[in-house]
This record gives sequence, structure tokens and C-alpha cells, in this order.
Amino acid sequence: MAADDTTLAWLEDLEALRRLPQRYARAIDARDIDAVAALFHPDGRVDGVRGSASVTDYVAGLRAAPSTFTTSMHVLGEPLIDLAPGADTAELDTYAVVYQLGRADDPDAALTLGIRYLDEVVRTEGAWLIRHRRAQALWTRPG
Amino acid sequence: MAADDTTLAWLEDLEALRRLPQRYARAIDARDIDAVAALFHPDGRVDGVRGSASVTDYVAGLRAAPSTFTTSMHVLGEPLIDLAPGADTAELDTYAVVYQLGRADDPDAALTLGIRYLDEVVRTEGAWLIRHRRAQALWTRPG
Amino acid sequence: MAADDTTLAWLEDLEALRRLPQRYARAIDARDIDAVAALFHPDGRVDGVRGSASVTDYVAGLRAAPSTFTTSMHVLGEPLIDLAPGADTAELDTYAVVYQLGRADDPDAALTLGIRYLDEVVRTEGAWLIRHRRAQALWTRPG
Repeated sequence: MAADDTTLAWLEDLEALRRLPQRYARAIDARDIDAVAALFHPDGRVDGVRGSASVTDYVAGLRAAPSTFTTSMHVLGEPLIDLAPGADTAELDTYAVVYQLGRADDPDAALTLGIRYLDEVVRTEGAWLIRHRRAQALWTRPG
Repeated sequence: MAADDTTLAWLEDLEALRRLPQRYARAIDARDIDAVAALFHPDGRVDGVRGSASVTDYVAGLRAAPSTFTTSMHVLGEPLIDLAPGADTAELDTYAVVYQLGRADDPDAALTLGIRYLDEVVRTEGAWLIRHRRAQALWTRPG
Repeated sequence: MAADDTTLAWLEDLEALRRLPQRYARAIDARDIDAVAALFHPDGRVDGVRGSASVTDYVAGLRAAPSTFTTSMHVLGEPLIDLAPGADTAELDTYAVVYQLGRADDPDAALTLGIRYLDEVVRTEGAWLIRHRRAQALWTRPG
């Protein structure tokens, strides 16, 4: 490709990558587990707040576990994206504040978490998927 | 247009669209109602936290109503933007945390809201304007 | 340059500019003062929450001062970027919520600040650097 075409493709990739964490936020907040699963590579891995698991087990866990809180809102900052022009892998570093609200036994219960998502993503059949997510809980606050 | 030109125009549009919610935040936080009005289509509609109104009535309401709080800060996440290449309409889905601070009768009063803005925007004489905004208050907290 | 090349270069610049505040957040949260210093123009100025200083003095102050809190998380919104195509200077207006956590004498101590960064940046030997930062603390809350 000419230099301009490479740059144009790079910019398009950045826009696609930028959507990934936002799509995750909408999917998990809607408890739409199929939509969450579609963002991860089937052979991927999630090192999460609740331990390390394959994507298969992570998704199964989401389906099985009733959510402790009735409502969540994952407010994400702009991701810091590392993508070399023409590369098929990228790194995303995204800060999030997660608001958890309402509990079956206590509608006023609330929890706020500061989370950092470190995602290794890979281009797979034209789409970008999360192959390895490390979610670090930096802080937790009641209310 | 050639494919490259379409992509380039699409990327430019995304940058313009990304600015819209941020310009709204700066305008409303500065209580600059003219600047708020300039972001909406004159024939548009706002389904807001305080009910549904035409843009004309919404703007008039902002001008008429003294703000309950003296200071606000609308902290917005990156919008999730749906725009087909070459299209003249787009959808923006933006998460916001709104900090309201200080009240005439109680300077220490504060309120924090989690709001989701679902905006239908339209290209109008070269600029993107909000034609239909739905603002959903997901949660509210004192302090 | 042809119009397309100018637009392409403008889009690339926006991506570089967008990274600046995010890189600042990661650097300051990691207490990596060298990485913070690398984002500022050596002849620059910082009008900060703790007064006005040259970049040299600002960086020296960061190195000298033990951080009051053990952990920080600078969650930034998308910056509102003003950059004319082809220009070598730009303005960034970034909203931030800064979570400060844990104090040597009180591990449960916490402080949350709403900060607005108004950055004047300049292209310097191919990189964008902050030449003048004004950091305005809009509000502060315990916890």
C-alpha cells in the first residue's frame, strides 16, 4: 500500500478499536451476554476481578451468575491505544468507573469501582476481538 | 467519490460528531444557552429528564429557569457513534456523569447523576446538529 | 499538499493529540515523573491547582514532593480539541475526575476532584508537547 493508504487504514482501525470498550460497556450494562461474548476471541482469556478464566468459562460464568446489583453503568474514558500501522494486534488501556446500583435485598445499596482494563486485541476475520483482558480493580467505594 | 475519499470523509465526520457532546458539556456548564441552542436542529425534540419538549421549548426553558445549582460539570465518556460512510444522519450513545454543586440556600448541597444521552443527529448545511435527544437518568446520588 | 493529504495529516494529528492527556493520566498515576516531563515543552508553564510554575519547577516539584495519597486515578473525558488543518499549535480542553486514595496516616482517606485541563500544545520536532497547562479545580469532595 502507499503511505497514505496505510495511514487511512490505521485511522479506520483506531475508530474500530475505540468502539470495542464502549460496546463492552453497553453490552454488560444491558446484561446482553451474547453481545459481550461477541467482543472476545473464542480462544481468549480474561484475568478479571473475580479470577482468571478462559473466555468460554468467563462467558459461561456471566450467564450462570445472577448479577448482584440490578443496574450497572460502566463509564469509560478514552482508551489509550497502541497500534502500529498495518499491525493485526493492538493494546488498549482503558480507565473505567463502574457504578453498581440496587440489590435485591437492599434497593439503596450501591458500589462504585475504579477499574483499569488492559486489553490485547487481535484482528480476526476483519473484526477486532479481545484476546486477553486484564481487569484491575484499583479502588472500591460504597455508595 | 473513490473509496478512499469516502473513508476520509467518514473519518472527518466522526471527528465532528465526537465534538458534539463535548461542546454540549462546555456550553451547558457555562450556562451559555446560545451555544447550547446552536447544537440542536431548530425542528428537533428533546426527551429529557424533565419531560419531552420541542427544541424551541427546551431552549426557552433553559433561558427561563434559574439553575438550581450554581455549578455543573458534565463529564462524558467517548460516544459510541453509528455512522454509515456517506450518510447524513448518525446515532450517538454517550454516557455522562453530571456533577451538580452548590445551591443558593445551601452551598454544600451536591447531586451526582448518571445520564445516558441517545442522540439522533443530522447533517444540516454542512454541520451536524442534534435532531432528537433522549436523556435517560440512570441513577442519582446526593453528594 | 493536496486537500486530501492535509485532511489525512489533520486526522493523524488529532489521534496524537488525543493521546496526550491519556498519557499524562497513566504517567502521573504511576508516579513516573520522567514520563510526565516528556509530555511538556521544556520552556512551558503550568498554572496548576498549587500555583503557577515553569515546567522545570513543576517537574522538580513533582520529584521533590511525596504524594499525599498513595494511589491516584485520573479518569479523563474525551478532550475537546481545536486544531486548524496544518497548524502547529492546538488547544485541548479536557474534563477529569481525579480519585485520590489512601494516605500514609489514614489508609481509608480519599478525595475526589473535578478538574478541567486547558492545554495549549505545540508541535515540537514532530511531537506534540504541552506548552501551557491551566488546571482548574472545579470541585473537591471527601471520599
